[in-house]
Amino acid sequence: MSLEDRLLPPQAKPHASVAKISEAWYVVADAKALAKKPLAVTLLGTPLVLFRTHSGKPGALLDRCPHRNVPLSAGRVEGEHLVCGYHGWQFDRDGGCRDVPGLMGVGGNERSRRATSFPAVESEGWIWVWPSLDVAPTGSPFRFPTLPGYTEARRVVEAPGTLHATLENALDVPHTAFLHGGLFRTAEKRNTVTAVLRRYADRAECEYLGEPRPSGLVGRILSPSGGVVVHFDRFFLPSIAQVEYRIGSETHFMVTSACTPVSDFETRLFALVQFKTRFPGLVLKPLLEPIARRIFAQDRLMLGLQTSTIKRFGGEQFESTDIDLLGPHIWRLMKEAERRPPSEAPRDPSVVEYEKRIELRT
Amino acid sequence: MSLEDRLLPPQAKPHASVAKISEAWYVVADAKALAKKPLAVTLLGTPLVLFRTHSGKPGALLDRCPHRNVPLSAGRVEGEHLVCGYHGWQFDRDGGCRDVPGLMGVGGNERSRRATSFPAVESEGWIWVWPSLDVAPTGSPFRFPTLPGYTEARRVVEAPGTLHATLENALDVPHTAFLHGGLFRTAEKRNTVTAVLRRYADRAECEYLGEPRPSGLVGRILSPSGGVVVHFDRFFLPSIAQVEYRIGSETHFMVTSACTPVSDFETRLFALVQFKTRFPGLVLKPLLEPIARRIFAQDRLMLGLQTSTIKRFGGEQFESTDIDLLGPHIWRLMKEAERRPPSEAPRDPSVVEYEKRIELRT
Amino acid sequence: MSLEDRLLPPQAKPHASVAKISEAWYVVADAKALAKKPLAVTLLGTPLVLFRTHSGKPGALLDRCPHRNVPLSAGRVEGEHLVCGYHGWQFDRDGGCRDVPGLMGVGGNERSRRATSFPAVESEGWIWVWPSLDVAPTGSPFRFPTLPGYTEARRVVEAPGTLHATLENALDVPHTAFLHGGLFRTAEKRNTVTAVLRRYADRAECEYLGEPRPSGLVGRILSPSGGVVVHFDRFFLPSIAQVEYRIGSETHFMVTSACTPVSDFETRLFALVQFKTRFPGLVLKPLLEPIARRIFAQDRLMLGLQTSTIKRFGGEQFESTDIDLLGPHIWRLMKEAERRPPSEAPRDPSVVEYEKRIELRT
Repeated sequence: MSLEDRLLPPQAKPHASVAKISEAWYVVADAKALAKKPLAVTLLGTPLVLFRTHSGKPGALLDRCPHRNVPLSAGRVEGEHLVCGYHGWQFDRDGGCRDVPGLMGVGGNERSRRATSFPAVESEGWIWVWPSLDVAPTGSPFRFPTLPGYTEARRVVEAPGTLHATLENALDVPHTAFLHGGLFRTAEKRNTVTAVLRRYADRAECEYLGEPRPSGLVGRILSPSGGVVVHFDRFFLPSIAQVEYRIGSETHFMVTSACTPVSDFETRLFALVQFKTRFPGLVLKPLLEPIARRIFAQDRLMLGLQTSTIKRFGGEQFESTDIDLLGPHIWRLMKEAERRPPSEAPRDPSVVEYEKRIELRT
Repeated sequence: MSLEDRLLPPQAKPHASVAKISEAWYVVADAKALAKKPLAVTLLGTPLVLFRTHSGKPGALLDRCPHRNVPLSAGRVEGEHLVCGYHGWQFDRDGGCRDVPGLMGVGGNERSRRATSFPAVESEGWIWVWPSLDVAPTGSPFRFPTLPGYTEARRVVEAPGTLHATLENALDVPHTAFLHGGLFRTAEKRNTVTAVLRRYADRAECEYLGEPRPSGLVGRILSPSGGVVVHFDRFFLPSIAQVEYRIGSETHFMVTSACTPVSDFETRLFALVQFKTRFPGLVLKPLLEPIARRIFAQDRLMLGLQTSTIKRFGGEQFESTDIDLLGPHIWRLMKEAERRPPSEAPRDPSVVEYEKRIELRT
Repeated sequence: MSLEDRLLPPQAKPHASVAKISEAWYVVADAKALAKKPLAVTLLGTPLVLFRTHSGKPGALLDRCPHRNVPLSAGRVEGEHLVCGYHGWQFDRDGGCRDVPGLMGVGGNERSRRATSFPAVESEGWIWVWPSLDVAPTGSPFRFPTLPGYTEARRVVEAPGTLHATLENALDVPHTAFLHGGLFRTAEKRNTVTAVLRRYADRAECEYLGEPRPSGLVGRILSPSGGVVVHFDRFFLPSIAQVEYRIGSETHFMVTSACTPVSDFETRLFALVQFKTRFPGLVLKPLLEPIARRIFAQDRLMLGLQTSTIKRFGGEQFESTDIDLLGPHIWRLMKEAERRPPSEAPRDPSVVEYEKRIELRT
């Protein structure tokens, strides 16, 4: 079967804020969640079955048996093969058909019986998939920070928003005083700070100068005594959001989220939280966990309301101002990467840097 | 932003029995239901947020923040402004953006940051909205009857039918003997009466001559001793249904329903029931309430079945006879008003009057 | 109303595996299920109301009153007529309008007030409908086998798959070793047998030569001592599936299923199970019933997964091999019957017969 003949799910007319970058590695599962049973996931609207062979290697196939189009995720793993649950056809990690039970005297790897396979690797405790069928992987998956001695936690959460809306939400400061009022910042305390914006060819970051320690619960738990604040929000193409805080000399806090576009309006976040403070991590973790959950529940609610409004109106129509610091840059980088032929270098290699004075509610 | 650029929900191809009259006042809420919290309503398929400022005035905005398109109904009222729950943008009743928290040195009323506003007034205990963005309100909302000394009740109910189907149902006599058999009329007792039909430029009415007191429960409760019956069913453009009964000299009963087209197949009725009888209203109210609820439940069920059949067949195909007295006239008046440029006078100013003999089951 | 003007539910673009054969009799209900109350059913996507008049005759009308388009199935039967529940219009079995309550001095059978009627007969304990409005019935409904002295059971079950997928599933042998592993066959025991395939103009059958008794539960219950196996799987146009087993001289087992295309992806099976064995049927029935239910639950699950995958991908893309014995022939016969003008004889009157060696897991 040629690439042209391969049936894939139909794509709806894309929304203005949806950018689909196919030539990239995306996290599709926590490596621990992929054990003996095949796992159904969706990436960029395409249904995939993930499986781990007995020798431990991860495989990713289109979640549809070429025989009668049932999902292969309803089957099971046998040795190095994934076995369909309907008629027992067997496939290897490359999609080759290795057995058709009952069929006599015919080789088991005929081209038209192949399942469609996608590159899959295990790296840093996550399973990554490269969703392009036309372009082979270039480069390795994103490297998460290595911070020895830090307390760590991994979390997988779902956001009912576009990849762009979810990334912007994760890296946006002003909404925290309103949507999460009191938990992280409050709307009452106002400080004028300087935001330094830098855009590179494959990432963008915002650094805040002169920011006091956030006055909400989280800041007071992480750093009761306060100190000089170093704060960076970072975006890495195609889908990584990173927030870094240093407060004084003892407190360092970092959240790195690999965001995966499940479909146009569903994003899954695979987050690594890393921190050290004056207090033992084991003490702080149970204090921070419910607050983090509450903050994310508020974000999820708002992203869901945004999505349902966009769908109801048949499209989005955003109006940005100077304090939407990273959102428009993320959108521009994503749109450029979407259009770019994969072999070509980014069109915009120079660093863009400028400063803005904003009133930060802390 | 020009009117042409303003994004509104997409409109489906209209059904034959759906007429959308935009240049008119519609009730969108009981005034008592609009207190401190903003209220999400839908009018003619358009999502609106209603709010009441601290000074008491009602406002109606498109339920979408121009910034990131979340519904403004998820926000809150502060003073004279509606505050978005995501980033705290503030809007006045005219849609002007009065604050963007964090943004420095810029006026708060820039044109592209405006929310879309609709005329809203409070009148007769209801909140009314004028859904046209192109034409300013002409005239005042409909005046409900003032009947001093009468017992009154207000009810807000939902009907799963088009505005036309709901109006026709409210003003149709023949179905009451079948759908509501025994409650209001019965299919057994047959009388020949005269129906006088009058159509004006902006309304239509049907008067029944020679009608005996309805023999069902409602008639016997309202007027045990009976008497001469005066019965009018009235429609007023764009969406008012009124049923009036006088039985003998002591009983007078009037239901005026402002029907609001929520969407093509959802109608909300804001009803005022007014009556006087020989007995105290406080005694009759608890007797009539459960019967009225049961009658409306039967109508709602039938309108829902009608709607699902129309949707299933992809359209309606009605066949009327001489005893569909008001329905076809309501449809004609609505279709004329839909087509008419708002500045123009109705095309059909003369009164149409004719009589029909029908067999009324009472 | 001409045929051209008659409103019927819109038809979606057909899927490759969906064949709609209109000129045929289909079972729509167990005759016992059609008593005093009208019954709503769907056939080939068209909503029908079935009713039985007081004289016992079955009627089938389009489930939509021509007056205000409510479903006639919400009404009731009076004498020889079906009465609409909204305004009491009455229809006979031919769709003629026999009463419009309240309307005076007009005949009750005007053309534009007719309901759309479909040919309906009662035969063999089932109600059958002929869904074509353009072509009158040719021939009689399918005759189920008459097997005196056999134990019989009738079952009505729903399958969430196309008619073709459901028929193929019912007549497919290889999947039984995987999907129903242990219940009927097992994947472990392998035998080489000969399948003889015969396709006629209006049916196809597969005979298995040299097949041992299936080793699963069902085979051991039906025939503990085994014996020579005679096994036929048969398809009759448009929608009948039949499985016949003889094991030794004492055991004979036959399932005949009239499959009805409710809509493109919903099929209803009206099955007659007939068997005789060495043991009394009353003893075997309670043993076989839960196993049959479990087998069908597994098939239903798989057909549902197949359907949702096909819908998700916007179409099917099947790849068959030599051991898909009947499926491709069923598809060919259905597609030919769909295209064929009803007056014309089948294009393919000769018998096709060939043999295949397959490895049967028993």
